[in-house]
Amino acid sequence: MSIPPSFQDREVAVSRDAASPLRGRREMFLVPDGTIYLDGNSLGALPSAVPARIADTVTREWGQGLIESWNTAGWIDLPRRVGAKIATLVGAGDDDVILTDSTSVALFKAIVAACRLRPDRTVIVMEPSTFPTDGYIATSAARMLGLEVRWCDPSDPVRALRDDVAVLCLTHVDFRTGAMFDLGALTSAAHDVGALMLWDLCHSTGAVPVELTEHDVDLAVGCTYKYLNGGPGSPAFTYVAPQHQAAIDQPLPGWMGHARPFDMERDYAPKEGIGRLASGTPQILALSALDAALDVFDGIDHPTLRAVSVSLTDYFITLVDARLGSQFEVVSPRDAERRGSQVSLAHPEAYGVVQALIERGVIGDFRTPDLSRFGFAPLYVTHVDVFDAVEHLVAVMENREYARPSYSTRNLVT
Amino acid sequence: MSIPPSFQDREVAVSRDAASPLRGRREMFLVPDGTIYLDGNSLGALPSAVPARIADTVTREWGQGLIESWNTAGWIDLPRRVGAKIATLVGAGDDDVILTDSTSVALFKAIVAACRLRPDRTVIVMEPSTFPTDGYIATSAARMLGLEVRWCDPSDPVRALRDDVAVLCLTHVDFRTGAMFDLGALTSAAHDVGALMLWDLCHSTGAVPVELTEHDVDLAVGCTYKYLNGGPGSPAFTYVAPQHQAAIDQPLPGWMGHARPFDMERDYAPKEGIGRLASGTPQILALSALDAALDVFDGIDHPTLRAVSVSLTDYFITLVDARLGSQFEVVSPRDAERRGSQVSLAHPEAYGVVQALIERGVIGDFRTPDLSRFGFAPLYVTHVDVFDAVEHLVAVMENREYARPSYSTRNLVT
Repeated sequence: MSIPPSFQDREVAVSRDAASPLRGRREMFLVPDGTIYLDGNSLGALPSAVPARIADTVTREWGQGLIESWNTAGWIDLPRRVGAKIATLVGAGDDDVILTDSTSVALFKAIVAACRLRPDRTVIVMEPSTFPTDGYIATSAARMLGLEVRWCDPSDPVRALRDDVAVLCLTHVDFRTGAMFDLGALTSAAHDVGALMLWDLCHSTGAVPVELTEHDVDLAVGCTYKYLNGGPGSPAFTYVAPQHQAAIDQPLPGWMGHARPFDMERDYAPKEGIGRLASGTPQILALSALDAALDVFDGIDHPTLRAVSVSLTDYFITLVDARLGSQFEVVSPRDAERRGSQVSLAHPEAYGVVQALIERGVIGDFRTPDLSRFGFAPLYVTHVDVFDAVEHLVAVMENREYARPSYSTRNLVT
Repeated sequence: MSIPPSFQDREVAVSRDAASPLRGRREMFLVPDGTIYLDGNSLGALPSAVPARIADTVTREWGQGLIESWNTAGWIDLPRRVGAKIATLVGAGDDDVILTDSTSVALFKAIVAACRLRPDRTVIVMEPSTFPTDGYIATSAARMLGLEVRWCDPSDPVRALRDDVAVLCLTHVDFRTGAMFDLGALTSAAHDVGALMLWDLCHSTGAVPVELTEHDVDLAVGCTYKYLNGGPGSPAFTYVAPQHQAAIDQPLPGWMGHARPFDMERDYAPKEGIGRLASGTPQILALSALDAALDVFDGIDHPTLRAVSVSLTDYFITLVDARLGSQFEVVSPRDAERRGSQVSLAHPEAYGVVQALIERGVIGDFRTPDLSRFGFAPLYVTHVDVFDAVEHLVAVMENREYARPSYSTRNLVT
């Protein structure tokens, strides 16, 4: 690709930001001065509305309202109300998404439930470069159900699909490389063999368009503390297609998923609909934070979000190519169609590079063995951030800042 | 029991509070003026230190520290640090307690793990009046493991114990009646048949002495939003006795329980010790709130907490007997040795009674079909609260306030 010289002019970045359909959204976040935050794919930045909302939940709702806030403050419905907000971001119906537990636990429920919808089948297909928890959880589910995990070829998951497959479970965007699967095509391929499709949307929701209803996805789970900015450890969401909800038989039945929780019946009877995915008492503080956090997406359509994300990641790759030549291997797909909202660069000194950048206020992260990851949350990362980050990266390499002795001890962040 | 006339004098309550070894602790809570809060067995009151701690976690740690706070703010260790604080309240070693998921999910892990420690046995013994979730979860675990749930006689769980029992799972204090099992005796009885003992401590921790190490308990789980005041939906704790930790094989293996989480290995290898009970990313906002909340217990020994709890519940029962005669049936054991920190009164109009009390600022709760429950959190409920609550109850009954038409529609709180 030939790069016009003007690309290397910071004014280009300034004018792109001025023309961005998302200009002004950054003011809805409290990003620290002097920080270029390129780790929103790991922990999203703090939306400005969250501190006041959390304070109100703690001091007024909990402190003053006490137990009555389950009704008067609507705590009891919060997992569904927040779910309806997320539904708009993943192309789902309002009644098809709920917030429950951690992603790990939500995945266990979804995998077991999916397998029970296909009781005559014996295989769960997983992809080996998925986030590790997904594999551990699938293996555990298979063990408990007497099924088998089949590991597919990451470059061609379809080859693993046969008529013994109950569910194909894939991560939409790879946490290491940012590579993105074709959600529609793979869902169709799973259906072609009679299998169900379960998507892990942790690294796509909020940055990449996801159209669950349009593509007839069966089940999905996703994280809310990355591009959804729900705060550290906020609960995962679960989507179940409407046609499966009445038959969902999930392995962690709790009182909050019971049809009549306050009748305190000894026998379990699941709620109608998505509510049966609930187990224990919902995490109200985290859900309140997330509820407020999601308002930063108000009025943004999926194509706009995607266009800004692609513009940022394309610009980053172009500048890295232009300014750093072959020093880094761009591990993420260069084709934007196959890339999420992150770019990963391989370098033998990646750990030191990331640490040196952090000292300069450019926050990305390291993934073993040699990846530096940079996430571009389209709501608060600007083209100027991208330009300046690359300038810092050039300086880190020119000055060999990555080789400082203090970086020889790895102090890893998630 | 004959009641000295002076018992019915409010000055008795005042002087008991003045002499209480826990006097002054109430000032560590933000209980609303004019409220007598007798529902801390469902949702604990707000400790004064929590709002500032949560604000700091949100604004400084998350907002300013961003992803680096996993290390710099110690988020990564929070489930263990908070666990160590709870360990002192349940008579456990600092390294034997961890905070993970909801109680429902924690129970699933504990039950499955317990059964896997007794692979030659086929039965999980449950008690039918336990909190409903416990039964649902045990039934699901049994189904997945190919085992059987045996429902014991609540008045004599020992009769269900035979050499086919893998684990006896009991709720220490009954959520309806406040009746308390003999933790030591039942643990011994389980061990006598070679079974493991798993205690659900939801309704005892923080109000009733629990001595897990002393009584050689194998596993325990408990809630943190009742007497531990962690806030709505705060995560549960799990205890595993040190001698079992190395063999624990739990069904929800996640990256946070992996020996080397940041190596992102495809195969699961559990952490040494209690850390292997972790699954997904910890709930940092809730854990921060809980961490601050637990400081209200600083310097209080178990016998002191128990003495005040018993004094409050004894006083309540005595006043109800004296002022209300036979209008209510005291469902909770009259013998304090067999009672937790709550008193339940049965009455056909219990729902209306509770609603009428709430309108008077006396907050208890209703449990179907006919129970009014009153919890006495020893750190912030006073003898004057008890006295005044009974006076309100007398007025509710004398004026038939429970019969208001608006109470015919039940709007249930948890």
